[in-house]
Amino acid sequence: MAEAWTLHADRALPAEPAQRAVARQIYGEIAALPIVAMHGHVEAADILADEPFGDPAEFFVIPDHYLTRMLLSQGHTAGELGLEGGTADHREVWRLLCANWKVLRGTPSRYWLEHALVEVFGVAQQPSAATADAIYDHLEHRLSLPEYRIRSLFDRFGIEVLSTTDAAESDLAAHTALAAEGWGERVIPTFRPDTVFSLDRPEWAADLEVLAARSGVAITGYDSFLAAIRQRREAFVAAGARASDHSHLSADTTPLDVAEARRLFDAARKAPLSTAEAAAFAATMLFETARMSLDDGLVMQLHPGVVRNHSTPIGDGYGGYDIPVAMEFTRSLRPVLEAFGHDPRFRLILFTVDESVYSRELAPIAGAYPSVRLGAPWWFLDSPGGLARFRELTAETAGFYNTSGFVDDTRAFASIPARHDLARRIDAGYLSKLVVEHRLDLDEAVETAIDLTYRLPLQSYARPTA
Amino acid sequence: MAEAWTLHADRALPAEPAQRAVARQIYGEIAALPIVAMHGHVEAADILADEPFGDPAEFFVIPDHYLTRMLLSQGHTAGELGLEGGTADHREVWRLLCANWKVLRGTPSRYWLEHALVEVFGVAQQPSAATADAIYDHLEHRLSLPEYRIRSLFDRFGIEVLSTTDAAESDLAAHTALAAEGWGERVIPTFRPDTVFSLDRPEWAADLEVLAARSGVAITGYDSFLAAIRQRREAFVAAGARASDHSHLSADTTPLDVAEARRLFDAARKAPLSTAEAAAFAATMLFETARMSLDDGLVMQLHPGVVRNHSTPIGDGYGGYDIPVAMEFTRSLRPVLEAFGHDPRFRLILFTVDESVYSRELAPIAGAYPSVRLGAPWWFLDSPGGLARFRELTAETAGFYNTSGFVDDTRAFASIPARHDLARRIDAGYLSKLVVEHRLDLDEAVETAIDLTYRLPLQSYARPTA
Amino acid sequence: MAEAWTLHADRALPAEPAQRAVARQIYGEIAALPIVAMHGHVEAADILADEPFGDPAEFFVIPDHYLTRMLLSQGHTAGELGLEGGTADHREVWRLLCANWKVLRGTPSRYWLEHALVEVFGVAQQPSAATADAIYDHLEHRLSLPEYRIRSLFDRFGIEVLSTTDAAESDLAAHTALAAEGWGERVIPTFRPDTVFSLDRPEWAADLEVLAARSGVAITGYDSFLAAIRQRREAFVAAGARASDHSHLSADTTPLDVAEARRLFDAARKAPLSTAEAAAFAATMLFETARMSLDDGLVMQLHPGVVRNHSTPIGDGYGGYDIPVAMEFTRSLRPVLEAFGHDPRFRLILFTVDESVYSRELAPIAGAYPSVRLGAPWWFLDSPGGLARFRELTAETAGFYNTSGFVDDTRAFASIPARHDLARRIDAGYLSKLVVEHRLDLDEAVETAIDLTYRLPLQSYARPTA
Repeated sequence: MAEAWTLHADRALPAEPAQRAVARQIYGEIAALPIVAMHGHVEAADILADEPFGDPAEFFVIPDHYLTRMLLSQGHTAGELGLEGGTADHREVWRLLCANWKVLRGTPSRYWLEHALVEVFGVAQQPSAATADAIYDHLEHRLSLPEYRIRSLFDRFGIEVLSTTDAAESDLAAHTALAAEGWGERVIPTFRPDTVFSLDRPEWAADLEVLAARSGVAITGYDSFLAAIRQRREAFVAAGARASDHSHLSADTTPLDVAEARRLFDAARKAPLSTAEAAAFAATMLFETARMSLDDGLVMQLHPGVVRNHSTPIGDGYGGYDIPVAMEFTRSLRPVLEAFGHDPRFRLILFTVDESVYSRELAPIAGAYPSVRLGAPWWFLDSPGGLARFRELTAETAGFYNTSGFVDDTRAFASIPARHDLARRIDAGYLSKLVVEHRLDLDEAVETAIDLTYRLPLQSYARPTA
Repeated sequence: MAEAWTLHADRALPAEPAQRAVARQIYGEIAALPIVAMHGHVEAADILADEPFGDPAEFFVIPDHYLTRMLLSQGHTAGELGLEGGTADHREVWRLLCANWKVLRGTPSRYWLEHALVEVFGVAQQPSAATADAIYDHLEHRLSLPEYRIRSLFDRFGIEVLSTTDAAESDLAAHTALAAEGWGERVIPTFRPDTVFSLDRPEWAADLEVLAARSGVAITGYDSFLAAIRQRREAFVAAGARASDHSHLSADTTPLDVAEARRLFDAARKAPLSTAEAAAFAATMLFETARMSLDDGLVMQLHPGVVRNHSTPIGDGYGGYDIPVAMEFTRSLRPVLEAFGHDPRFRLILFTVDESVYSRELAPIAGAYPSVRLGAPWWFLDSPGGLARFRELTAETAGFYNTSGFVDDTRAFASIPARHDLARRIDAGYLSKLVVEHRLDLDEAVETAIDLTYRLPLQSYARPTA
Repeated sequence: MAEAWTLHADRALPAEPAQRAVARQIYGEIAALPIVAMHGHVEAADILADEPFGDPAEFFVIPDHYLTRMLLSQGHTAGELGLEGGTADHREVWRLLCANWKVLRGTPSRYWLEHALVEVFGVAQQPSAATADAIYDHLEHRLSLPEYRIRSLFDRFGIEVLSTTDAAESDLAAHTALAAEGWGERVIPTFRPDTVFSLDRPEWAADLEVLAARSGVAITGYDSFLAAIRQRREAFVAAGARASDHSHLSADTTPLDVAEARRLFDAARKAPLSTAEAAAFAATMLFETARMSLDDGLVMQLHPGVVRNHSTPIGDGYGGYDIPVAMEFTRSLRPVLEAFGHDPRFRLILFTVDESVYSRELAPIAGAYPSVRLGAPWWFLDSPGGLARFRELTAETAGFYNTSGFVDDTRAFASIPARHDLARRIDAGYLSKLVVEHRLDLDEAVETAIDLTYRLPLQSYARPTA
């Protein structure tokens, strides 16, 4: 591989020449649109600090769950990868990635990394054992430059707005400070109360203390707990939040009656609830979240169906052993949809990592209830095939206009443009098929692509009361 | 869009040129074959009356669940759509559809409507806010002409036989009258006893009275109930019926023992059964239906897995908030297949809206039991992608000859030719792939296409005892 | 069909010309690689005996579950097919297959048979009613020749190593004799203890007697039962085995505590366990199998999710009415993965016939745990579409290098090269898509194809302690 490494302009577009020509035309109209990133995991504090990202291993490898999982799955250890605050030499970590470049074949990680290395960092050699050191040196230098700090890249990437993910008890101080610097429209928080809604966690009682302090509400029982939640939602709205986010194991939204909710809440203050009790309480919280959203206008995002930290001996440190389970939405969402599904003040965006529900449940639900939008393919499904199957399995029943547009869902800042670019290419490819099969006119396809890329994410996450 | 709106001859055929050429050849051999429509929802009374269809909104929009769901999902109200016997001006309803033409992009509704407007009604402009009135006027005129009444269109569409769907307690009067006018071979009833098999319905006891009156059987308990059902099946057979149809939530066919069935029946006469009891009784009815079919030869169709009227505040009026759930067939059908699965007098046609069962359960079952045929993709799956995935996920295990051929399952009469035409195009596309990949000869593909289009539906719905 | 029947060199490769050219190039590099067949059902005794295979019906039709199921599904009877030790004239059985050639359209059986007939047996006419007798005569003659005995074909097919499947209580005599003749490296046993792990079987107590006798361990309870299993595993290892194989209905691996396991074992010696008790015991056996494998290094294969002999009146004789059910792996495997998932001595290869778990559960599990590899598409999924979907639904999350390579899983010896050849073509097709979409370089695709075909099966089934 002696010649310079470049990426093909038509990558991830369909192979058939007529279809590729149409896809290229559609993609050309959307490639340069601003990035609307309504569901991210970058920390506001990092944007505020705007310090150098660190060395290549710290930036590209160690915090990237996709990469560390793949390298662990091939028998490399957490120690070798610099996980668990390990002492591994970071140049060695980088060498390990480059020497294992082949195990990434066919994965979106490979695709995103290529984009970041070539398009963002100007790397001109494909990673391998032989090129690892030269690339490391190149990256280390670039990462030391001011134009590779986060705010410069933010501009260069064309990010119009980026949403962070913040605990209910967060003080939102970084967001406040960013706003004072004029970044309030560009970086907004998202309200994620999962931990305080999980009454089987041993740490729950301590988290509740923080929530009480932060909200200024003395939490003496279920009712004042709800008041504290409402206070935090209002604080988030004041800080620019447009959405809440919920990652329960189940999509159940069946509310307990108030007396039972009060009883469970009181019991949890003495000892963690059983798994079943905690699940019933969490379902109630989803129902109450929907109800609160009618007043404060926060869009409700539901990301269910993942067993977190599947391997308890491994735990969080190794980068999230999330493993999905089969999902059920039809019966689970019925309570909240019967209550609020036709209320113009309610907006629910649904995500899944179980593709069997796309055509069976999610598309029929989004194709009926005005409050529901389908979120983008998420986690394992944020990939060329995953993005394509999402359209194939939802567009015919839900159309394009009941979907929310792409969200990148990442903490890997350098991968943001790669992820949005890939989603644009795959949507262009899907639309090009409709055009060459004479099921859609080209001008309609272009307008649809622009809507999916830019207008729908803004509109879907606009608070419905706004 | 100044030039006349026409539909491309190759629409919905594969893009790749060599494959398209083969698909066009296969499609050319089946495009003009008669329509065999063995599972429809058009009313026999409407065919008998043969009156004008009404205005364009009444004909195209208000009764079409697909369209009204999509428009509701985009925030339009039942009132605006003329639902619930609403007083909306029908020209306004039509304008609403045309102004929202873009939300139909990528859906089969768009495809069917285009076909009906252009091919059947000679519309020459694509719907939009600007063209809505002109198209309305054009359609209103056409709908007033004798050649746009149902019997004329029946001939023009080339419908050889159309099956209606009729309650067990129907008097079949319209069918009798049609037969007297020589239409007995072309319009036949289907026996659908869902309501009288649902013992948790408050209206059940009243329906039972009608059943008793109609059958002439005094229903005093479970045994005379079965006798009344048998009487109605015989009446349906006499009126030309070839099949029964069953839309239970579950596919369970486990029979209760007779004493328990009698007990539940007697209990239901006093008060509606619980959901669980009613489900157990319904499963028994599927088993008994299979047993009865050995004698009277009615083919048994099973359409399970849909929660009807998901939003109870909405209800039927809005056009069917059906939402599917995960299905199980392997264990559910075991009782009926162990008892009758190899009986040459038994024929069971299976439908699903859960695509995960195609390769896992339905194709292996149909590829083993001689009594079982796979029905066509149904409801949300009657779409270009849905039809294609059906073949991809079933043909390799069940082959083509354990499938029943296409059924349109619609009450939208004008969409019937569009739906059959689309299914023919998608099957031609699937077969063309096998040909260009050298897995099937062209002459075999053509014969298979003809079989799928014409011979298999007739043969699958021929009563096996005939 | 007057001209000689030949198979196209590009069969089962993608249609699009540029992609086909790349696929042809990739396939060309792997087409002639040796066959590594690590999961077969050919009998060692038959390889030892090396006698003529019998007539064409005995060789091609009667023992092939795929063919007999398809012919039964079309209404032919077990008697006509020569099943149940039937007395059907074997030429008539062959004629029946040829006359029904069309029902195999679109199935892998058709593909495999074509390959075997043309490439292995030199048949030059496509089967039909008209050609049945001539083909029968041709095949009968070939089958009588020494070069069509199993050991000659073994060489001609280029089989480097073939694994058989053997009960725990097998004496492995045929393997011992083959080793004495120098075939020990080429034909190896696989340890399959399903029957002795199924404590609800009426025959279990009798099988236990055989196990005791064979192992030399007096089985007086649960502990000595485990000792007997360990003894047999060691005997299998000594005979060259590299893997155990387990075909439980569920993937559950939750171990009972020892006292409860002992209690159930003792109870089973008096009367068969209930289904639920037997399932709990079987799950414990999977856990114990994993634990034992740390010591003896046998790779553990799990093939769950099939209801065997779905039609009990039919039974085994008709060729296996296996029907799959929905599967769950995430929670089911958690006990064994928490205990051993990161142990370098443990290797678990997972198979499924429920495709909905590929992207949801299996790829995320294999893409995280170093002990796990994804097995090849199995049973109904060993088909052009099934093989393609496996890559589409797993490669993006698990990559290629967490898969085990192809296994043929067949007792139809003549189909072995056809099955491996088809898998190579489909993998070449999948890789060619990545190349023409500029997601992978051609040299990388070729290396990956070679790894999938040859290196990964050898490496995946190498005992990890070796």
